Amino acid sequence: MSNLIEPLLQTDAMLITDPYNMRYLSGFRGGEGILYISGKSHVLITDSRYTEAASKESTYKVEEESRNRRREEILASYIHGEKIRTLGFEDLHMKCAAYQKLRDAMPEGLRFIPLGGSVNALREIKSEGEIQLLARAEQIGDEAFSDLLGVLHAGMTEREVAAELEYRMKKRGAQGFSFDTIAASGPNSSMPHAIPTDRKLADGDFLTLDFGCLYEGYCSDMTRTIAIGTVSNRQKEIYQTVLAAQNAALQGLHAGMTGEAGDALARDVIRKAGYGDCFGHALGHSVGLYIHEEPRLGPGSRVILKKGMIETVEPGIYVPGFCGVRIEDMVVITDDGVIDLTHSPKELIVIG
Amino acid sequence: MSNLIEPLLQTDAMLITDPYNMRYLSGFRGGEGILYISGKSHVLITDSRYTEAASKESTYKVEEESRNRRREEILASYIHGEKIRTLGFEDLHMKCAAYQKLRDAMPEGLRFIPLGGSVNALREIKSEGEIQLLARAEQIGDEAFSDLLGVLHAGMTEREVAAELEYRMKKRGAQGFSFDTIAASGPNSSMPHAIPTDRKLADGDFLTLDFGCLYEGYCSDMTRTIAIGTVSNRQKEIYQTVLAAQNAALQGLHAGMTGEAGDALARDVIRKAGYGDCFGHALGHSVGLYIHEEPRLGPGSRVILKKGMIETVEPGIYVPGFCGVRIEDMVVITDDGVIDLTHSPKELIVIG
Repeated sequence: MSNLIEPLLQTDAMLITDPYNMRYLSGFRGGEGILYISGKSHVLITDSRYTEAASKESTYKVEEESRNRRREEILASYIHGEKIRTLGFEDLHMKCAAYQKLRDAMPEGLRFIPLGGSVNALREIKSEGEIQLLARAEQIGDEAFSDLLGVLHAGMTEREVAAELEYRMKKRGAQGFSFDTIAASGPNSSMPHAIPTDRKLADGDFLTLDFGCLYEGYCSDMTRTIAIGTVSNRQKEIYQTVLAAQNAALQGLHAGMTGEAGDALARDVIRKAGYGDCFGHALGHSVGLYIHEEPRLGPGSRVILKKGMIETVEPGIYVPGFCGVRIEDMVVITDDGVIDLTHSPKELIVIG
Repeated sequence: MSNLIEPLLQTDAMLITDPYNMRYLSGFRGGEGILYISGKSHVLITDSRYTEAASKESTYKVEEESRNRRREEILASYIHGEKIRTLGFEDLHMKCAAYQKLRDAMPEGLRFIPLGGSVNALREIKSEGEIQLLARAEQIGDEAFSDLLGVLHAGMTEREVAAELEYRMKKRGAQGFSFDTIAASGPNSSMPHAIPTDRKLADGDFLTLDFGCLYEGYCSDMTRTIAIGTVSNRQKEIYQTVLAAQNAALQGLHAGMTGEAGDALARDVIRKAGYGDCFGHALGHSVGLYIHEEPRLGPGSRVILKKGMIETVEPGIYVPGFCGVRIEDMVVITDDGVIDLTHSPKELIVIG
């Protein structure tokens, strides 16, 4: 992490535009605006839709931007007044056009420093309080999944399944969803990011449910694959292979290993079973205020896992035109293993 | 519009990264990837999570990007092979870091041309088919709102109200939501973009519901403000002022006027009633695949409204610490007026 945050140390002031970083640093939940942080000032610039909420949520000084008082003018006055020479900006988030507008409004000679992932890196290791919120979010998912099993039946459409699941997450305390719920059945389950359709659940289907909610801004993420009626022996073999791959990863992951080594724990099991070509995505990603955070568990990820990081563990096998299976838990990395935040059952559930 | 699309005509090829523009041009719904469009090729580059869906949704040639075959390499090979000299890119959408990565990978001498809002401008005037989808999306909102009135009662929390409303939109056919549902009661209703809380609806509250769903990718957007129990005469006066402002706009809007003139129709009514300082946002925005599209109806908007554009008409009065009212319909601009796509009642509804 230390080389990632290096750019932060080279700046007199920085601009934060990523809504998750804005929230992490200032507490402001609205997402629309910009933070200016220098040795002298902590300023949150936002518009009239958010100023009242902002002053409740954040201890930053709130400045209201409007058509007559543009963000760039407000920033220029701070930068001029505080004699700022180097200004960090979030090049991973800021759009080219916004950057150009900003440059045009700033004093000559001001040096812009791309911050890359340096602010995001501050968010990689979760505090005890953050882990509690993530655990609660995941628990809401577990509860909603259990509730859903009571109403799930052949003949429901994928869309109805997604609606029922989301409704139950909300009833259980979800404040929103961390991504669009995936409910993919039959041949659709071979598309890892399928969008729910009007297809009806039918005998012999696998149904993959990948879903997550928001609790106090923190995301949950879990996946379960369920059988509808009678599935074939080959489907069962695929399911058991994915489950074995996940178990290998859950048992082998710990702080000190690379993201690539973590991924290999599961990938080796799938490869040895002959499905190496059917697992096209990474084993997992970190989760926090945003659903896809760094570091990843995946081929090429040289990042060393650290205690307090969150990772999803989600191996899958996808056979186009036939079926797909994915099983996903969300875990906390510890020195000697992981703490699994997901508690829904993983033996193959068969719905009548 | 013609000067907006000018940059498109200066390029040999263009890159499209805005997910809504990707969908509009190619049909691809996944959102993750990039389009390359030249005289010779229509290419959609995306990763293994989306390739199967992409080849069903789009007629573009699908190229799979991966860790070993990066997007920039695929693009460089087309650009080299087709002797492209000028390349348009979406500077309103592309991040600074992605742009830098792209530049570094491209042949020397290639000229990059910022496209600004030129591709978005193609989406401003809706086709008959698009208007039908928008109307259906808005109808789902109307139906869900009507359903909600049957279960709404004092004592429910804002979060429960939002969950019930979203559930009913999904049951009525919504495929998702066009933004986070707003259910703001009592003093919270003075924050135009309030996030639902655990506050319980109580006698004397205004409850503002601002919500929208997705239907075949198209967004709906509507707002209604409801009274819980007995509200004061001042609250009623505020409500009637907002309603009068909205009616003035609905009756006065037509193709050929500017966005600013449209906004003034409602703003003048609110100003004359003495609430000019309590209406901090614009009267409306366009809606399509994305919830906030151009052109706006607002101060400073010199755009000429055209037949087939969609606009929201959503005046509001917000008195911090006291209450807020907003009423919003979504309309199609025609040569001599508007077609209102929203049909929920607007006389003040009193619950319980």
